[in-house]
Parts: sequence; structure tokens; C-alpha cells
Amino acid sequence: MQPFALKNALDNVRQTTPLVHSITNYVTVNDCANALLAIGASPIMSDEPADVEDITGVCGGLVLNIGTLNERSIAGMFAAGERASQLGHPIVLDPVGAGASSLRTKTAGDLLDNLAVSVIRGNMSEAKALAGGSAATRGVDVCPDDAVTEDNLEAAAAFAREFAAKTGCVVAITGAIDVVADGERAYAIRNGSSLMGRVTGAGCMLSCVCGAFATANPDNCLDATVAAVASMGLAGQIAQGRMGGFDGNGSFRTYLLDALFNLDGDALEAGAKVAKLS
Amino acid sequence: MQPFALKNALDNVRQTTPLVHSITNYVTVNDCANALLAIGASPIMSDEPADVEDITGVCGGLVLNIGTLNERSIAGMFAAGERASQLGHPIVLDPVGAGASSLRTKTAGDLLDNLAVSVIRGNMSEAKALAGGSAATRGVDVCPDDAVTEDNLEAAAAFAREFAAKTGCVVAITGAIDVVADGERAYAIRNGSSLMGRVTGAGCMLSCVCGAFATANPDNCLDATVAAVASMGLAGQIAQGRMGGFDGNGSFRTYLLDALFNLDGDALEAGAKVAKLS
Amino acid sequence: MQPFALKNALDNVRQTTPLVHSITNYVTVNDCANALLAIGASPIMSDEPADVEDITGVCGGLVLNIGTLNERSIAGMFAAGERASQLGHPIVLDPVGAGASSLRTKTAGDLLDNLAVSVIRGNMSEAKALAGGSAATRGVDVCPDDAVTEDNLEAAAAFAREFAAKTGCVVAITGAIDVVADGERAYAIRNGSSLMGRVTGAGCMLSCVCGAFATANPDNCLDATVAAVASMGLAGQIAQGRMGGFDGNGSFRTYLLDALFNLDGDALEAGAKVAKLS
Repeated sequence: MQPFALKNALDNVRQTTPLVHSITNYVTVNDCANALLAIGASPIMSDEPADVEDITGVCGGLVLNIGTLNERSIAGMFAAGERASQLGHPIVLDPVGAGASSLRTKTAGDLLDNLAVSVIRGNMSEAKALAGGSAATRGVDVCPDDAVTEDNLEAAAAFAREFAAKTGCVVAITGAIDVVADGERAYAIRNGSSLMGRVTGAGCMLSCVCGAFATANPDNCLDATVAAVASMGLAGQIAQGRMGGFDGNGSFRTYLLDALFNLDGDALEAGAKVAKLS
Repeated sequence: MQPFALKNALDNVRQTTPLVHSITNYVTVNDCANALLAIGASPIMSDEPADVEDITGVCGGLVLNIGTLNERSIAGMFAAGERASQLGHPIVLDPVGAGASSLRTKTAGDLLDNLAVSVIRGNMSEAKALAGGSAATRGVDVCPDDAVTEDNLEAAAAFAREFAAKTGCVVAITGAIDVVADGERAYAIRNGSSLMGRVTGAGCMLSCVCGAFATANPDNCLDATVAAVASMGLAGQIAQGRMGGFDGNGSFRTYLLDALFNLDGDALEAGAKVAKLS
Repeated sequence: MQPFALKNALDNVRQTTPLVHSITNYVTVNDCANALLAIGASPIMSDEPADVEDITGVCGGLVLNIGTLNERSIAGMFAAGERASQLGHPIVLDPVGAGASSLRTKTAGDLLDNLAVSVIRGNMSEAKALAGGSAATRGVDVCPDDAVTEDNLEAAAAFAREFAAKTGCVVAITGAIDVVADGERAYAIRNGSSLMGRVTGAGCMLSCVCGAFATANPDNCLDATVAAVASMGLAGQIAQGRMGGFDGNGSFRTYLLDALFNLDGDALEAGAKVAKLS
């Protein structure tokens, strides 16, 4: 990546306060809104088909998260997504639970096929289900067999690059090691904390943060996504460092938002562990 | 205001534990419920048209918040609102995002026209959209041009008084400076913290708190609303005072609820910055 | 109870990471998901009828909570419940607000009549409404006249045993004193904190925690439910013990999740106040 690419990407978020329209699940939506505010963006949520086109129209980016999808919100996702596609807004797709139900797999696939999606953000099981390579998931968690490790990292990167080339999207596959790729380049990001799997919504928040970065950095979606993933991972590490003896996932959730809120471009450059893969 | 009006208004909430039915958005609903509990009220949420009349019937007040409105919840708002109007319960209307979409502007206007609304609580852009004077908003945030400042405070108060006179409601326009008015009197409230704009839901929570105060103080809706607005603003200041070096909007959200929970009538009298406007 | 029954029940949750499908209200759903993660389970939420059967199929247990029920989620509850019944998964029913509206009373009754419910978890007013013995509630809170006290404890236990015998369920009636019974045995649990009534969702979280314990301890639903209720009560006490001078219900909510997260089987055995009733 270019020198200071991460810092510049974060600075662009904080200086432009991008408005991001999110259609997301009701489990983690509050954390998603606060994560957007923490990183310097402004959140708007609306899933009613009769409302979403206007809301998308006043925003700069769109995040579609299929957790707790329903008939109405699916219609809302397509209506908002078509408007965002017309307007050239970046669209982030989070295929929560793709592979765990046929409705989720089909909906994620239809959204990807019909909208101008910029970024796909999910775990490896979801990404494989969406790419048609697998249908096994452990609910909304990654299957142990699918987890990205140092041993299978090159294969994971090759899969991500291929999926990115096929779809024209930036693909962010997150887990213990994160992989972010477009059709040509792939990066591994080794930030993060295992506690991020012990709070609900770390992935959903990251997808919204990706939306903020993509909206504020329209000319470089790959670097923007790497910066978003590294920011969330570094925030997780900072949050873990604050944990005291009585703290658990309640406090970690608070610390994670706090760390995003206080994240500084220079600290991001210094702390991000981003490596280009062959 | 009368001496001890603020303290009395808060004491009435704490002593009567008003049950407040809220139909509100799924983004901030948890914070709304906890804000009601913090101030001494008891929350109930229900938006299904077949359920809301019974629920309204066992409550003492109603809050209608149109964030994440949908076809079902709009029907629920009218059904609950008609029942509350029949029962003489105070109704608080929070026109979230009025002006940002035609559905929101129309729904807020229809609710106002058809129900016996007692209090309208929103930012200046939303209030102007509802009053028919403007259609510009920045999503769910106030347009910079609409923000109430010391320079335009008298004009803002005149607008609020006029809108209150026209609708028969108490109008609470909140921002850096809050204005609360009925058709005759207007107050400026200079409490609050800029951090309240960096967490989602400060406005939604305030609307619910207004519902608690209006329900517990049925004979003086204006003073009740001033007390609610001052309470939330003072809680914001107290929360800001607790912020440490690693704290961000995650901690601020927690501290805000804590401050509401611990707010005391004497502290409210001492800390409220309420000024009658000419 | 058998020696170490509580510790064993908790250890089984932590060692098997049960996947629990919850169809629950949008007010407290985030806390429910984090409570499941805190106790060592894995949460999945889905309420769309076209999605729930697949989701139930990949899980091990089901929690049905009727707060903020609507036409869609009711259909989802029946579809998920029928699938769970076929699969022999434990089902926990939380009849939030039964007695407060006819839709809630009827829906809770229909779910109980048509599904293989394993555990009913509610307050005494809800339990009475569901048993047909009363229709009075104070919204989603217990009626003061219904509260379980030392004076009426034996009568409460007799009611719980009778209701359990009639339905074939384990019945958990929670409040200042908790009563858990099957058709033959009843236990009183005297853990907990009065602050649990000042945050939204303590009951909803407990129902999900009951789902985790029932799923991880399929051969002893009564002991599993006693362990779940004692765990939540002890977590409440630990959370209360952390409260500082500025803390309120915002901090208590965080501390409650933290205490569940850090709860240890030995500490549970040592701190649980479980008494067999005659």
C-alpha cells in the first residue's frame, strides 16, 4: 500500500462525516449506529420499501446486512440498492448466515447479482456459501474447517482474489486472520482480539465501518477496506488491553466502541499489521 | 417558572412510576427503555396493531417515534394514538427524519393532524419540515443552517411559539441550545454536551423521558417538558464530566443512563440553566 | 439437588457451546445475544417464517419470547417451534406481558398448547395469566399483589408445581424470590438484586440463558433451569457489588453481562442460594 494510505483513509472519514444508510439486523443495529458515529460517520437506518429510496438519496453509501432479514426488509434492500447503484454509491454486502438457511444464501446471492456491490464482508463460511463453494456454516459463526490460519492463508487469499475478480467487488473475509482482496491484490491483516467473537455484532459493526471508509474514499475501495478492517482489529486490541479482572463481554463491547472513537490516523499506521500476499 | 417546578416535576415521575407505551425505532429502543427506567418510569413497547390498544390501555402515556417506521408500525401508531387520545393520555411525537423522506414527513404530519398530541420533540430541521416551512435535513441530524444559536435564538423561539399555538402542543426543539414553548411562553435551556450528538439515541431517549414527565405531571405539560429537557441536558453534562482518557461514545452512552438514574431533584434545580425568553 | 449439579450444568454449557435460536423482542435482543455469549453459548436470531425452519435446524435449542410480537414473528414462532418439537430440541417460552393484552395472552397460550415447550419462564402475573388464573398485570412487570414473598412462598410453589404438572413443563417464576418447579419438586432461589428490575431485559436474558442450560443439559431440565436462574441471580449480586457512586442502570447492565461472562462453576456452587421446598 502507499505510505500513509491507512491514515489518509481514516482522516477522510473524520473530515467528511459520510452519511451511511444501513439496512441491518435488529440484534446489533444499535452498536452499528454507534460504531459509525465512533469512526466519524453519521448513521441512518430505514428498511421500509416506501422509505428507503429517499433515505438512500440523502446518503453517500449503503450497507446491506441480511441478519434477521424478512420479506419487508429484503424488498427494502433491493429498492435501496437499486437507488444506490444508480447514484454510484458504494454498497457493502454482509451476508450474515449465508449457508445457514436457503433464504439467506439465495437473498445474498440475488443482492450480489442485481446490485452494484462494492464490498463483500463476511466470514469464510459465508463467503464460500455466497461463492457457491460450500453450504456449511455453524449458524452465524465460521465453521472450524473454514477458519483462515497461517497454514491455509495463501489458499484463502487465492479464493478471495478469485471471488473478487468474478464479482468485481473488494472481498473482506474476516476472522483470526483477515484477508482483503480485489481481483489482483490480496492483503492479510493480523490485528484483532479473540474477544471480538464473544460479543455480538463485531462483524456487523465492521461492515458498517467498511461502508464509512468506502464512502469517504471513493477512488480506492481496496485500501479503504483494508483501513476499515485494520481499524476495527486495532480497536479490538486496544479494547482488550483495557480489560480488568471483573470485566467481561459487557465491558469489552463498550471499550470496542471507545477505541474506535479515539482511534487516530497515526496510531492506525503504527499499529496496523497489514501484509501484502504474493 | 414556579420555584421548585423542575424538582417537583422530577419527584412526580419518581413517585408515580408512570407506565409509558413507546412505539419507537429498533435502533435506539433499548436505550429508550433504559432511559425510562433510569428516570423512574416503566417502559412498555408494542407496535403490532392488534396489540397496541390493549397496551396503551394499561399505560398512562404514549410516545410515537417515526425512526425506522414501517407499514405495520405506522398502523400501530395510529391505533395506539387514537386510544390514547380517547383516554386523555399525553402523546409525545418525535418526527425523526421528517424532511429526509416524503413518507416520514407525511406520516409525522398525519399523526399530528389526527391525534391529540401533547408534545412535539425534534431538532429544528424536523420541526420546520413538520411545520411546512422547510424540507431540508441532513438525514436524522439537523441541517447546519437550521441549528439554534445565540444569534437566532429569538427567531427560533418565535417559530416554536407560533408552531405551538397552531398545533396546541408544547414544542421542544433541541440542539446546542434547546427551546421549549407553548403558544404563549418560550424557554431556552442551555444544558447538554456536544457528546450527545456522538451517540445514537440521545434525542429518542429524551422523547421518552418527555413522555414520562408529561404522564407524571398532567396539569403542566410545559413545565414538565422543560424539566425533561433540562434533566437530559444535565445528565449529558454529568456524563461528560466522568469521561476519562480512554473513554469514547461507548462509555458516554453508559454514563448518560447512569446520570439520569442518579439525577436528584435538588441537583436538577441547581444545575438547570433555564431562561425565559421575551 | 445432586452435589455439584449447578457446577456441572454450567460446565456443560461452557464445554458444548450450544447454538440457541431465539425469536425475541427488539427491545432487549442485543442483551439476549450478549448474555448467551457471556454464559458460553452461541446466539442466532431469525423471525421470518421462510427462514426459521432452516435456522432452527442448525441449532440445538429454541427460545420464544413474545415481547413486541407481531403477525410475522408469531408465524415465525409457530414454524420454528414445530420444527424444534420434531427435532426434540428444548423450547423455552417467555410469555412477556401475558395478561396485559389479549393478543399476548392468546399467543402464549397457543404456543404452549401446540408446541413441545420444555420451560416456561416469566413473572407470577404472566404465569397466572397463562395458567388461566388471572388477567391482571402491570404492563410487563409483576402486579404487586402477585409478587412472591416469604409469606406466600409455599402457595407460589404449589401453584408452580401444579402448573408444571398440567403442562409437562419446568416452570420458572422469577422475582425477588424465584421458584422453579416441575410437577413433583419445587425449589426457591434467593439470589438476585433489586437493580435487575431497573434495567430492561433481565428477564429476557434469563430466558435465553435457560435455553442455553436446557440445550446443554438435555437429561435434566429441572436442574438445568435451577442452575440458569441461580447463575443469573448470582450475576446480579456480583454486578451490584461493583456499583460505584456514579453508577446507575447503564453500568449495572454492563456489569451484569460481565458477571455472567466470568461466572465460574465453583463460584456458582458456593454462591447459589437454592432451597428445596416441601
